[in-house]
Amino acid sequence: MKLWGGRFTKATDKSVEEFNASIQFDCRMYAEDICGSIAHATMLSRQGILSAADANAIVEGLKKIYGQIEQGEFEFSVELEDIHMNVEKRLTDAIGEAGKRLHTGRSRNDQVALDTHLYIRREIAAVARLLMQLQQAMITAAKRYSDVIMPGYTHLQRAQPILFSHHMMAYFSMLSRDFIHLQYAWDMADRMPLGAGALAGTTYPLDQPFVAELLHFGKIYDNSLDAVSDRDYIIAFLEFAAVLMMHLSRLSEEFILWSSSEFKFIELDDSHCTGSSIMPQKKNPDICELVRGKTGRFYGHLMGVLTMMKGIPMAYDKDMQEDKEGVFDAIDNLKFALTIYAAMINKMTVNGQRMRDVLECDFSNATDMADYLAKKGLPFREAHAVVGKAVHYCIEQGKVLQQLTLDELQGMSPLFSEDIHHYLNIETCVRQRNTYNGTSPASVQRQCHAGTAAVVEEEKQITKWDTAVSAVYEVLK
Amino acid sequence: MKLWGGRFTKATDKSVEEFNASIQFDCRMYAEDICGSIAHATMLSRQGILSAADANAIVEGLKKIYGQIEQGEFEFSVELEDIHMNVEKRLTDAIGEAGKRLHTGRSRNDQVALDTHLYIRREIAAVARLLMQLQQAMITAAKRYSDVIMPGYTHLQRAQPILFSHHMMAYFSMLSRDFIHLQYAWDMADRMPLGAGALAGTTYPLDQPFVAELLHFGKIYDNSLDAVSDRDYIIAFLEFAAVLMMHLSRLSEEFILWSSSEFKFIELDDSHCTGSSIMPQKKNPDICELVRGKTGRFYGHLMGVLTMMKGIPMAYDKDMQEDKEGVFDAIDNLKFALTIYAAMINKMTVNGQRMRDVLECDFSNATDMADYLAKKGLPFREAHAVVGKAVHYCIEQGKVLQQLTLDELQGMSPLFSEDIHHYLNIETCVRQRNTYNGTSPASVQRQCHAGTAAVVEEEKQITKWDTAVSAVYEVLK
Amino acid sequence: MKLWGGRFTKATDKSVEEFNASIQFDCRMYAEDICGSIAHATMLSRQGILSAADANAIVEGLKKIYGQIEQGEFEFSVELEDIHMNVEKRLTDAIGEAGKRLHTGRSRNDQVALDTHLYIRREIAAVARLLMQLQQAMITAAKRYSDVIMPGYTHLQRAQPILFSHHMMAYFSMLSRDFIHLQYAWDMADRMPLGAGALAGTTYPLDQPFVAELLHFGKIYDNSLDAVSDRDYIIAFLEFAAVLMMHLSRLSEEFILWSSSEFKFIELDDSHCTGSSIMPQKKNPDICELVRGKTGRFYGHLMGVLTMMKGIPMAYDKDMQEDKEGVFDAIDNLKFALTIYAAMINKMTVNGQRMRDVLECDFSNATDMADYLAKKGLPFREAHAVVGKAVHYCIEQGKVLQQLTLDELQGMSPLFSEDIHHYLNIETCVRQRNTYNGTSPASVQRQCHAGTAAVVEEEKQITKWDTAVSAVYEVLK
Amino acid sequence: MKLWGGRFTKATDKSVEEFNASIQFDCRMYAEDICGSIAHATMLSRQGILSAADANAIVEGLKKIYGQIEQGEFEFSVELEDIHMNVEKRLTDAIGEAGKRLHTGRSRNDQVALDTHLYIRREIAAVARLLMQLQQAMITAAKRYSDVIMPGYTHLQRAQPILFSHHMMAYFSMLSRDFIHLQYAWDMADRMPLGAGALAGTTYPLDQPFVAELLHFGKIYDNSLDAVSDRDYIIAFLEFAAVLMMHLSRLSEEFILWSSSEFKFIELDDSHCTGSSIMPQKKNPDICELVRGKTGRFYGHLMGVLTMMKGIPMAYDKDMQEDKEGVFDAIDNLKFALTIYAAMINKMTVNGQRMRDVLECDFSNATDMADYLAKKGLPFREAHAVVGKAVHYCIEQGKVLQQLTLDELQGMSPLFSEDIHHYLNIETCVRQRNTYNGTSPASVQRQCHAGTAAVVEEEKQITKWDTAVSAVYEVLK
Repeated sequence: MKLWGGRFTKATDKSVEEFNASIQFDCRMYAEDICGSIAHATMLSRQGILSAADANAIVEGLKKIYGQIEQGEFEFSVELEDIHMNVEKRLTDAIGEAGKRLHTGRSRNDQVALDTHLYIRREIAAVARLLMQLQQAMITAAKRYSDVIMPGYTHLQRAQPILFSHHMMAYFSMLSRDFIHLQYAWDMADRMPLGAGALAGTTYPLDQPFVAELLHFGKIYDNSLDAVSDRDYIIAFLEFAAVLMMHLSRLSEEFILWSSSEFKFIELDDSHCTGSSIMPQKKNPDICELVRGKTGRFYGHLMGVLTMMKGIPMAYDKDMQEDKEGVFDAIDNLKFALTIYAAMINKMTVNGQRMRDVLECDFSNATDMADYLAKKGLPFREAHAVVGKAVHYCIEQGKVLQQLTLDELQGMSPLFSEDIHHYLNIETCVRQRNTYNGTSPASVQRQCHAGTAAVVEEEKQITKWDTAVSAVYEVLK
Repeated sequence: MKLWGGRFTKATDKSVEEFNASIQFDCRMYAEDICGSIAHATMLSRQGILSAADANAIVEGLKKIYGQIEQGEFEFSVELEDIHMNVEKRLTDAIGEAGKRLHTGRSRNDQVALDTHLYIRREIAAVARLLMQLQQAMITAAKRYSDVIMPGYTHLQRAQPILFSHHMMAYFSMLSRDFIHLQYAWDMADRMPLGAGALAGTTYPLDQPFVAELLHFGKIYDNSLDAVSDRDYIIAFLEFAAVLMMHLSRLSEEFILWSSSEFKFIELDDSHCTGSSIMPQKKNPDICELVRGKTGRFYGHLMGVLTMMKGIPMAYDKDMQEDKEGVFDAIDNLKFALTIYAAMINKMTVNGQRMRDVLECDFSNATDMADYLAKKGLPFREAHAVVGKAVHYCIEQGKVLQQLTLDELQGMSPLFSEDIHHYLNIETCVRQRNTYNGTSPASVQRQCHAGTAAVVEEEKQITKWDTAVSAVYEVLK
Repeated sequence: MKLWGGRFTKATDKSVEEFNASIQFDCRMYAEDICGSIAHATMLSRQGILSAADANAIVEGLKKIYGQIEQGEFEFSVELEDIHMNVEKRLTDAIGEAGKRLHTGRSRNDQVALDTHLYIRREIAAVARLLMQLQQAMITAAKRYSDVIMPGYTHLQRAQPILFSHHMMAYFSMLSRDFIHLQYAWDMADRMPLGAGALAGTTYPLDQPFVAELLHFGKIYDNSLDAVSDRDYIIAFLEFAAVLMMHLSRLSEEFILWSSSEFKFIELDDSHCTGSSIMPQKKNPDICELVRGKTGRFYGHLMGVLTMMKGIPMAYDKDMQEDKEGVFDAIDNLKFALTIYAAMINKMTVNGQRMRDVLECDFSNATDMADYLAKKGLPFREAHAVVGKAVHYCIEQGKVLQQLTLDELQGMSPLFSEDIHHYLNIETCVRQRNTYNGTSPASVQRQCHAGTAAVVEEEKQITKWDTAVSAVYEVLK
Repeated sequence: MKLWGGRFTKATDKSVEEFNASIQFDCRMYAEDICGSIAHATMLSRQGILSAADANAIVEGLKKIYGQIEQGEFEFSVELEDIHMNVEKRLTDAIGEAGKRLHTGRSRNDQVALDTHLYIRREIAAVARLLMQLQQAMITAAKRYSDVIMPGYTHLQRAQPILFSHHMMAYFSMLSRDFIHLQYAWDMADRMPLGAGALAGTTYPLDQPFVAELLHFGKIYDNSLDAVSDRDYIIAFLEFAAVLMMHLSRLSEEFILWSSSEFKFIELDDSHCTGSSIMPQKKNPDICELVRGKTGRFYGHLMGVLTMMKGIPMAYDKDMQEDKEGVFDAIDNLKFALTIYAAMINKMTVNGQRMRDVLECDFSNATDMADYLAKKGLPFREAHAVVGKAVHYCIEQGKVLQQLTLDELQGMSPLFSEDIHHYLNIETCVRQRNTYNGTSPASVQRQCHAGTAAVVEEEKQITKWDTAVSAVYEVLK
């Protein structure tokens, strides 16, 4: 029996019912729906809108339903459309009239908004921790391999030697920005919509600040129309997730490159790779490829919600029911990806010797040669040209720069003297790039220190979020 | 036990296994996987690569597994990764050594491509029929309401009177293009990839044309690298689906507008609407809003696959496993949307009187007045200006054009004479737009005739597709 | 003559040159490029890397070039690829050797990053002000029409009466979130990349904090690889812009609806509308449609940059040159849209009488009737059902709820008494929704107060940004 | 002076005018606008709607305007909004009253649709030829390097040896599908919209088939509402372009990989590379990176138009003006990319020796060893396991498979005999994959033959398109 059928003369078409229902995916928010209803009933009772007895029956009834769902003893019904109706119907079946009073001063429009805000907040806290743990894995790897020098690339051409740790800390930096992005998403999600009713508020003397306090919300929506039709917090999370996956897609690309026979820079642990059903020699970096590939679905989910919201009038429209599946899928995949990446970085083997070897046979130190000349007074643009010709000469001779004799060098520029070979040494090249964010050991050590401190701050933030989140569910215990 | 573990020394991490597995969604292609394997075994046997006895055991074993899955007696295992391994493992458990020979001359790379091609082909045929049926519902509605005149809009401003049927047939035209789009998608999907092996073909003397014949494929891939790494057919289907949903989103927008108190042009059947949990008077066009909103996820799926494919090297990369969930979701939602829209159009009530009434109090016939003057020799640009002023005068006087007296009119232009009122009549306005694709009854009748003939041609095409598709599954009977 | 040609033996293909060049669009950052170079030269000189004489020649030379560009006397060359090379070449032509020393300790990779950060920061400040001004226009409109009651909608069905001001303030709320989004974008953009060199830092003793101070940057990038390959700040701006346009697309949709003959809720000023080349009566809300339509290009630009960054290895890749055109286009269109919307809201006419009239003939007060019964003790779900039937009865009788006699009402529920007609009064309905964010006059007044205060805070923020931004260009005076 | 101002009392706001105008980008369709108007006037005259003298004056006047635009002597005005008004105003200024009669039976809605259809058709023909030429370059490269064997990859791990030609022909196959995609786009574009008027047809006795004949259109729109609001042909072109760029992004990724120091498989010509402003040794594959990066903007343009069209009611809405800039940008970039890629492939050097060398030190022949055992009767799954262990053994011993002694081999399986070394030979591996689309020389030769024939067919198609297109502009001579 529909809870809204009064003015209708015909039953809903069955396939319409199924198309229309959201219980298939919003059932995942059962804890939020129940905690939200308990808070609502508690407030109604405190305001004298509901009797204490009714409120008590509702709260106890809801807790029982929570238990049943947890035990897998609750069968969700498509006919009842959504998690709200499923829970309320069961409640009314169990406790009678009192159950029918729960929806006083509330609409499904603000109820679903409340559930989703609570759910997203919970997942933000969870994702934040996994993100932080991945950052920790990066710092750990940066420290473990602090003496490994590798070729740095631009345009996938070897450019200048860098520390492997420096490379790792670049990703750490990206993830630090993602954490700020997540704080923005939390700010968007941490707004209490209940009491907005269907769109315009209600005629009952609700105490919205009290509900916000019960559910540990930082803010209450200022405007009821906005409260029921805002999906910015969903979009904010999807933006965060899309950018984070973009960062991981870049790391994935590099891990895939580095695992190839051509690079051989790292070896991923067997437990993070798979084989081929036909080629016995294969050890494939599937996880990295999946993460790179899954970036697509994250972009898609973001595009999906943005498109859905485009051009729809206020306040609530049914289109907005399409806000959930994408973000749920994003959350699941993101948690997986963050967890596995932390493990993968912890377990991978970095082949420092191989990296060092290839540096001996390329021109990664060419900039240093140009800098050498520039420091001796040659304008940089001219120094650049001299070294360009030296490289060209080397290619023809099958040499690298450090193999050129002083004679050969002085033939190219009289400014070269014996110390040039010192400056072309790979270790020197790295040590000399001692600018604030450069690749020198001192700079990278500074980055690691700063990174460790940043993680401590992040953890403080996460703990605050965890506190707010777990307080919501206290009532279920 | 993994089927590819030979060179590995450590087991796969459990969460990696789950992240990596596709069985959660590719299990939906079990019939295709089994039919594909039967065709492969049949060909291997015919070529003498497999003994007749082995082939027979394989075919019978696979048919039994098909029966078990159909009966819900088959438990899929995440450890076995995908539908291919799940089926093959069960087969080998059942028939022993022969089962281990099935994968001869085949790789999962070409096997999954085969399954997906078969699956997409099947769904193209199914979707095509639903699309055609929606077109039929549009023609039927066009004929049923052939005498209803409504305001035509541009910029959501009333522009010129049109036939309701003409409006309906505009959507018919869009869907006719979608059918052509679908033919393109079929062309992309109707290519046989089996025999491409992992990437390079195989060393066995396979007879690929014979397999193509068994599975009723129109073409065989020309190049094995392409065969295993092509996802254009998925993208083609998603393009088709995105554009079709865009068309339906426009129709949805109009149905939503027309169902509003302000328009009241149509009334959707109760069975296609839902109510409100709080506002007893509401009758909401949820289906239309959902279809409009779901357009977002279709765009998202298209974006997702395009992004996934961007910049990945040949041949197969694991990223490509991400090709399925989006298109599966698109297929499910599309079939729902097409089915419900056909029913909704069949059952809705068109309020012709209301449409006619509003036309009496607006300026939809202003162009006709300008045309009248132009036909009497005034350059169109000047006629336009005269009528612009007449409209302005009417707004100030609270009149519409047909209420202006001949005196008033001749004060604006001496070219007006008595017959002007005939030309301002709404029926005349419609009848006079008798160009090839105009809104006159004669033109719309022509459109309906042509549309009916087009549907007949579409049905012929669909029947051909159905024949090819159903032939594939014959072997299971 | 290329500045990097040393090792090359062949000239660049002409069409390659054009395809490769960015000067067509990055020329818009000439002021940033010049200010950045002046800061770089100043620092080089302070560190003793450049002589005071050279630094002085460079600074004066650059200021002259700035003047030439401002005067339109500078011809940009495609052969010189980008704004950096165009400026540097001209400088060297003018001042000789000193010019060739400017690029010391710098690469185009960090230089273009610097220019773009400066440019985006400048535009964030400009956009922020326009955003705030649009918010002010909304508050002003909310106050101007504080007594106008209109139907509130869900599913585009009339739901409950609301204040027009409440509706306006809902959009104000959305824009307040956009302002926070913009603060996030500023945080991403306010990071100094210069000194990162090509990817690894440089061997010169640069003073990056000093450059950051000169250019009023809040932070310096922690890691040089990240500094040259980070495009998160571009994405952050595009995210902000996409969501803001989504909000405006919703407002546009409503303005378009409200301008239709069916709604007639507002009339846009003639100066914001256009006519038809063929239909003299038309007055089209083109601006609203354009803004709604332009939402597409904003989504597209966001997707474009996300796609571009997907899966590219560190550090700088040429792909990243594709970061600019989209964001430039977004900035231009956004500034236009914000400016015109503020003017449009200021000049539009709100038809309060019309809104009030339609409320008298619909069921927007049905929830109030249900609340009435619920407050008299009937469980809400049962009250809902009673009113549902009352609505159905009214539709059949051609009445609205307030026209039902007490007899009729009591036949439906004995709980009805004389005061029911008071509660069905539209003013009462609005006044009674006096929850925190409800539509009552008191609540909306509170929103306006809070909104005004919020705008004051925003202006403080903008002023800080303006200060940082304008300080950068001081040197040019 | 606006051509539609009659009913307006106030002038358009200046910034509105600029925001609203499309002349900045639609001026590129001047030839189409003029040819379309000539065809329209010719038809009007033939139908007796326009006098021969007027028609003649119009045609001559338009041809003069065409000449002026070609000579750069025509100044476009933003106040006149678009190309149509700019041309018509100039015409009326030049020839007087006759000019004001040109717009008879026409609206800007169908006029702009006509111009855009003509423009897209023209560019489809141009793009098709460039696409075909790129395919020819691929066949040529396949033939030039017909004896080069390279490692084939899956998951970027070496998988099996393949012919370089086979790899090249895989891209040929992709482009062949793109050509079919383009045929679909042509089918969408080749529909004549003129005569649809603003939305409903016109009251003049137009001869639309005659106009279609004059402009060589294959079809006429069946429905006038659809004719003015259809943007499927734009979307179809953008779909084609997005998928083609996706293909090129994959090729780009490979060229970038192959140009790296790690792979060294190819060397791009100096004329297609650029250097670094700081690192003298760099030779960067910029073109490849740009094409890979530009894929993003193509996806963005597609998403942009899809979003724009989502949920807008019929018929024409101003939103639709947003259809052009994206597709114009796509056309320009696509033509560049296709042209440069053909040149790049023609000029690049393939390092066959290097490819061959790396194959000697990997396990690309492992599948062949497994096939060997399977052919001797071992079930494939068991053969796979034996070889997996052999690979593992080799890795530990620092050997490759072909270096194992017969003794070692027979210790792994008694089925090995002397001929195994023949089967492990790289040439044998390639030659043995002689399935229909495999990598054997015979198969690749077949592909080249088939490809050459396909190109001939494409050229026939392009010639037909060119004929239709160039006939349109004949009238201008």
